[in-house]
Amino acid sequence: MFRCASTSLLRQLSQANKYGHQVRWQQAAAAGLNNTMAPAELRERQSVATFDTAKLTHLLDHDNHDMRNRYREYQKDPATRMKPRYNISLEEERELALKRLKAVCDNDFISVLNFVDNPYKIFAAHELVGITDPATCTKMTVQFNLFGGTVLKLGTKRHHDKLLKGIDTLEDVGCFGLTELGYGNNAVEMETTAYLRQGDSCSIAGPACTVRSYEFIVNTPTTLAQKYWITNGAIHAKWIVVFAHLKMGDTNHGIHGFLVRIRDDDMKVLPGVTVEDMGYKIGLNGVDNAKLSFDNVRIPREHLLNKHSDVSADGEFKSSIQGARNRFLTVADQLLAGRICIASMSVGGTKAALAIAVRYAATRLTVGPRGKSDMPILMYQLQQRALLPLIAQSVATNLAVDYVKERWAEQPADGSEHAEIVTMCCAIKPMASWLFERVVTTCRERCGGAGYLACNRFGEMMGSAHAAMTAEGDNSVLMQKVAKERLSAFMPSMPEPVDVDLDDTSVLHQLLISRENLAFGLLGMKLMKVRSVDCMKLMKAGKEKLFDTWMLKESDLVQGSARAFADRLISERFADVISKQTDEPLKKTLQKLYHLHLLTVMENNLGQFVCSGLLPSKLGAKVNLTAAKLCTELGPQMLQLVEAFGIPEEMLSAPIARDWVQYNSYDNQGEV
Amino acid sequence: MFRCASTSLLRQLSQANKYGHQVRWQQAAAAGLNNTMAPAELRERQSVATFDTAKLTHLLDHDNHDMRNRYREYQKDPATRMKPRYNISLEEERELALKRLKAVCDNDFISVLNFVDNPYKIFAAHELVGITDPATCTKMTVQFNLFGGTVLKLGTKRHHDKLLKGIDTLEDVGCFGLTELGYGNNAVEMETTAYLRQGDSCSIAGPACTVRSYEFIVNTPTTLAQKYWITNGAIHAKWIVVFAHLKMGDTNHGIHGFLVRIRDDDMKVLPGVTVEDMGYKIGLNGVDNAKLSFDNVRIPREHLLNKHSDVSADGEFKSSIQGARNRFLTVADQLLAGRICIASMSVGGTKAALAIAVRYAATRLTVGPRGKSDMPILMYQLQQRALLPLIAQSVATNLAVDYVKERWAEQPADGSEHAEIVTMCCAIKPMASWLFERVVTTCRERCGGAGYLACNRFGEMMGSAHAAMTAEGDNSVLMQKVAKERLSAFMPSMPEPVDVDLDDTSVLHQLLISRENLAFGLLGMKLMKVRSVDCMKLMKAGKEKLFDTWMLKESDLVQGSARAFADRLISERFADVISKQTDEPLKKTLQKLYHLHLLTVMENNLGQFVCSGLLPSKLGAKVNLTAAKLCTELGPQMLQLVEAFGIPEEMLSAPIARDWVQYNSYDNQGEV
Repeated sequence: MFRCASTSLLRQLSQANKYGHQVRWQQAAAAGLNNTMAPAELRERQSVATFDTAKLTHLLDHDNHDMRNRYREYQKDPATRMKPRYNISLEEERELALKRLKAVCDNDFISVLNFVDNPYKIFAAHELVGITDPATCTKMTVQFNLFGGTVLKLGTKRHHDKLLKGIDTLEDVGCFGLTELGYGNNAVEMETTAYLRQGDSCSIAGPACTVRSYEFIVNTPTTLAQKYWITNGAIHAKWIVVFAHLKMGDTNHGIHGFLVRIRDDDMKVLPGVTVEDMGYKIGLNGVDNAKLSFDNVRIPREHLLNKHSDVSADGEFKSSIQGARNRFLTVADQLLAGRICIASMSVGGTKAALAIAVRYAATRLTVGPRGKSDMPILMYQLQQRALLPLIAQSVATNLAVDYVKERWAEQPADGSEHAEIVTMCCAIKPMASWLFERVVTTCRERCGGAGYLACNRFGEMMGSAHAAMTAEGDNSVLMQKVAKERLSAFMPSMPEPVDVDLDDTSVLHQLLISRENLAFGLLGMKLMKVRSVDCMKLMKAGKEKLFDTWMLKESDLVQGSARAFADRLISERFADVISKQTDEPLKKTLQKLYHLHLLTVMENNLGQFVCSGLLPSKLGAKVNLTAAKLCTELGPQMLQLVEAFGIPEEMLSAPIARDWVQYNSYDNQGEV
Repeated sequence: MFRCASTSLLRQLSQANKYGHQVRWQQAAAAGLNNTMAPAELRERQSVATFDTAKLTHLLDHDNHDMRNRYREYQKDPATRMKPRYNISLEEERELALKRLKAVCDNDFISVLNFVDNPYKIFAAHELVGITDPATCTKMTVQFNLFGGTVLKLGTKRHHDKLLKGIDTLEDVGCFGLTELGYGNNAVEMETTAYLRQGDSCSIAGPACTVRSYEFIVNTPTTLAQKYWITNGAIHAKWIVVFAHLKMGDTNHGIHGFLVRIRDDDMKVLPGVTVEDMGYKIGLNGVDNAKLSFDNVRIPREHLLNKHSDVSADGEFKSSIQGARNRFLTVADQLLAGRICIASMSVGGTKAALAIAVRYAATRLTVGPRGKSDMPILMYQLQQRALLPLIAQSVATNLAVDYVKERWAEQPADGSEHAEIVTMCCAIKPMASWLFERVVTTCRERCGGAGYLACNRFGEMMGSAHAAMTAEGDNSVLMQKVAKERLSAFMPSMPEPVDVDLDDTSVLHQLLISRENLAFGLLGMKLMKVRSVDCMKLMKAGKEKLFDTWMLKESDLVQGSARAFADRLISERFADVISKQTDEPLKKTLQKLYHLHLLTVMENNLGQFVCSGLLPSKLGAKVNLTAAKLCTELGPQMLQLVEAFGIPEEMLSAPIARDWVQYNSYDNQGEV
C-alpha cells in the first residue's frame, strides 16, 4: 500500500542518483528519529513503496490465493490464532500440536484428497502452517503426505474406504514406518520382515475348514531394525504403514507397505507392538517421535497395500513391477512429494525469519553519526549486506519451488517426465532447506540478544531448518543422486566464451550454464577413466571403482556439480517469471532482486568462477562492489519486500516484529 | 595410546604411498566391518595412532593440567558426573545449573581470586564447564568474571571484605547490570542514573546532627532503560553492579558501577526493585535472565565501586580518570576478560562437537561398495571434507586463544600493551564463536537424524554458540572496532610478490600477511579521501563523513580487513607453536593440520586471493585439490585427533559418541 510519507520519499528517491539515494533516504527518514517513537511509527517513517505490494504477494503465493488469505485471516483473528507457547511441558506441547492440526483439518486447509483435486493446496498448507507452528506442520506432513498419501496411492478401495475419511478428521492418525535405526540412508537394506503364512481362521464359514486364510507376520529381528523417528508414533497414531520385506518361504519379494494397527480405539498399544518415546529433540518438540518394534504381529493378508503387488486369497504373489529395487522405489514414492512439502515449509520459514529481522532492524535505533542512538540498524550497510542477498535468494527459491510443484503436479501419466522431476525434487529440497538454515542463523545473529528470546521465533525455526536438511533424505546424499542423474542425461557442450558484463543478468545466467557444463564435463571425464577400466574388469569390480570415484575421491566435484545444476535451474525460473511479468514497477524490482541473486551466487563461488576462467579476475574483483551497490539501491525497499511476503504480524508473532517496547513495558515472562 | 590393531595398520600406512593409503586403511579397517559389531569394536578397528595422543592433549590444554585432569576425573565418576537432563521444567533446569555451579566452586575449580593468583584457571574452567553444561558455565562467567571480577577490580577493601568470600561460596550471587533494553551496542548512551544526595541519617552519632551523610538514588527512568538480559537476576542473585550515570546536581560525572542489593537473605526482592523473568530462550535455559528496574532505590555512598572514582564523606567527587568516555571504558573492563572466557567456552564446545561427530561417524555403517551397510561414514570423503578442515581450524583457534590468554595475563602494569590486547580479544572472541557455530551446525547435519536428538548435545551447543556470537559484544561490531584499531596502527607496506607453492606453509602464511596489508591499505585510502575533506570542514562534519564511510559505504571491507588480521594472527600462532614442538611424530601431524588450516582459509576466500592478484588463478584451481588430498591423508587420524581433544566419553555424554546401539536397546525416553 502507498503511504504519503512514502510517496514524498519516493519523489526524492526518483530524483536521487543511484549512489546518493540511500543517503537521502537516510536523511529523509532518519531526520529526528528517536527512541521515544513507537516501533510502528519508526517503520512508517522508513517505508518506501515503489511497487504494488499486493502484486508481489500474489506472485509469490502462486496458487490457492483464497485459501491462503483465509488462513491469514484465521491467524489474525484472536479467537482462532495459534499463538506460540513456550513455558509448557513436552506433553502439553504435543497435545497443542495435535489440537492445532485438528483445527487446520476442520477448517478445510488440507485434505488427503487434495492429491487428487488440488495438490498445490497440500504444499500451500505446508508453507503456511510451517510459519505458524513447525511441529503442527510436521505432524501434518506425516499424516497427510507420508501416511495418507501412501494409503491413497499404494492402497486400493478396501484401504480407502477404511481410512481416507479418518485421515482427514484425524480419527485415524497414522505413521510412516520406513526408516530403521540401522538403515537411515540405506533403507533398502532394512531388516523388518512380513512373512506370509496360513492363519488359523477359515476363509469360508462353515463346519469343515478346508482352506485356511493367509495372513502376514510382521517382525522386528534386531535393535537396529526398530522403526526409528516415527512421527505421531509416541502418542497419537492408531495406524502405521510398515515397510518390510515380503517373504514367502525362502523367497523375498522385496519391500512392500503393510498397514498395521498399533493402538485400539482407547489408544491402548496393541499386543506385540512396542512403542518407545524418543523424548526431547533440538526442535519440533510438539512432534511425538517414537521407536517402534513388532514381535511377530499378525495382520490380515488384506493389509498389504496392494495397488502394485498383491497376494491372492490362495497365497499367490503377483506384482505389476519387476525387481525388488523398483518395488522399493515405488513404495517409497511419497518421499518425493514429501521433499516438495519440506521445500515449501522451508520457503515459508525463510520469509518469516527475514520479515522478523527486517521489521526489527527498522525499529532498533543505535549509534548514529553523532554517537546518539538515533539510527535504525536497517540503515547500516552491515545489516543490508547480511539480509538483502538472502531476501533475493529467498524470492528466487520461492519461484523455483513453485515451478517444481507445477512440474510434479502436471506430469503426464506415462511417467515420461518422472526421472527429470525426481532430480528437481532432490535438488530443490536441499537448496530450500540449506537457505532456510543460513537465513535463520543470520537473522538470529543480526537481531542480537533480541533474537535469542524464544518468543522471537528463531530458535523454533532453527529446529525446523535442521529437520528439513536431513529429513526425507540427507541434503548431501540427495545432491549425490542429483549429480548422478544429471550426469547420465548430460550432453557435453563447450561453453562459448561470453563477454562478461556484471550488469547484464542474461550474461550472468550464461555463466551459470557454462559453470554447470564445466562441472559435469569434468565429472564425466573422471568417470570415463573408470568406465574404460570396466571393459577389462568384471561388472562388480567396475561398480566398486565407480563407488570409489563417487564416494571416496570426487565428492567435492559431485556436490559442486549438483549445486551448479540447482543454481542454474533456480536462475532460469527467476528469469522466466520476470519475462512474463507485465507490471512495470514490480518487474523493475524483480529484475534488481534477480540481479542481486545472481551476484550473490557468484560472490559465494567467486574462486570457482575466476579459477575456471569463466570470469576474468579483474571483473571478479568488481562482483562485491556491484552487489554492494545493488544493496544500497534496494535498502529503502527492504520493509516493503518483507511486507510483500504476506505474513500478518499476528502470524509472525515475534514481539520484535511488532511493538517490542510495549511488550517490554510489562512482566511478560517471555510469553506472547 | 597405541593398539595392536593400530600398529599393524600403521605399518601398512607407512608403506602406503600418500594417495593409496586411505584406500588401504579402508580395506584394512573395513574388511568385514558389519552391524553386529559394537561401536567400541568398530572404533577400535579403525583406530590409527601416529603420534602420542597425550602429548597433543597436553599442548591443547596449555595450562592448569592437574586441575583439568581433576575435572575430567570428576566428570567420569558416576557419583559426581553432571549428566545432562532433558525432560525437566524451566525451574528445575535453573536449580540444576546453580547446584552444579556450587559443585564447581566447592571443588575448587574456580575462585574469583584466581584473577590474582592464576588467571589461566578461570579460562580453563570456562572451557571445561562449558562442555559439561553451557548454562552452568554462563552463570559462572557472570558470577566470577563480570560480577566478581568487577567487584575485585573496581571495588576496594570495603567491598572485598563484604563480598569476595561470598562470591566464591555462592553465598552472594551477583549480576552485572550494564546492558539496557534500548542500549545494547551503545551502552554509553544508557539512561540509568545514580544521583548523589544527602540522606536523613547522621554521619556522626550524637544529639546534634550537623552533617547528614551522602547516599545515591538509583533510578530507571524509562522502559528502554531497564537492565536487560541480566544473568542470575531472575532467581539467584542477591546483588547487582548497576552501571549508571553518576550525577551531582546538574553535573554528570559519567558512568560508574554501584553495588545494589536486590534480594534479602530470604531471597525476597527488596522494595523499589522490580525483577521480571525473561522466560524461555533459544538455549541456555538453565540461566535465569531478568529485566531489572529501580524506582529511586537508596544506596549508601560507600556502594560506589571506588577504585578510580570516589565521593568523599563530605560530598566531593574525585576521579583518577579524566573524561566520561575513559571512565566508561574502565568500568566496563571486565568485558575484555569476558571475551576470553567466551572464546574459551567456544573452543571447548567446538572440540566436543567434533569429538561426538567423528566418534559417531566411525560407528555409523551405511552403503559400501557392494551396496551393503558395511562402510563407516567416517570413510566417506564427504564426511572427511566436512569435518577435517573444521578440526584443523579448531586446533588453530585453540592455540591462538591460548596466546591471547598469555598476552592478557602477562601484560605489563604500565598498560603499554593494553590497546593491542584489546584488539586481539575483540578479534579472537568472534573468530572462536563463529567457528563454534559453523562446527556445531555442520556436525549436527553430518550426524543426520541422530544429531537431532537432544541427548546428542548439538542443540544445547547451538544455543551456546549463538549466545557466544552476540554476548559481550556483537561479533561484527567487535570486528569493526578491530579494523579501526588496526588501521590506526597500520604501517602501509607493499606486499612483495611471492612465488606461490601450495605445499609450503610459510609461503601460504606470507599470502595471509599480504592479504592483510592489501585490505588495510585499501581501507586507509578510502578514509584518506575522507580525511582530506576534514581540512575543509568542521571536525563534526568530518566525523559524520567518517561514520558514513565506516557504517554505510565500506562495511564489507571493514569486516574483511578485521578478518584478514585475525586469520594472520591465528596462522602466526600456529606456526610459532610448531616451530617450538620437539616431538617429531606430533610435529608432523601439527604441520599437516596447519597446512590444512591455511588451505581452508584460502578456499573460503579464494575469490579474494585470486582477484587481488595474490594467487595465480591456475594455482587457485589447485587449492581444493590440495586440501582434499590432505584430508585423504589425515582421514585415518580423525579418531585419534578427537581423542587428543581430551574429553572423556562420560563428559561428551552423547549416546552417539558412546554405545548408541546399546542405548537404543531399551526404553530411554530420550534421556541418558
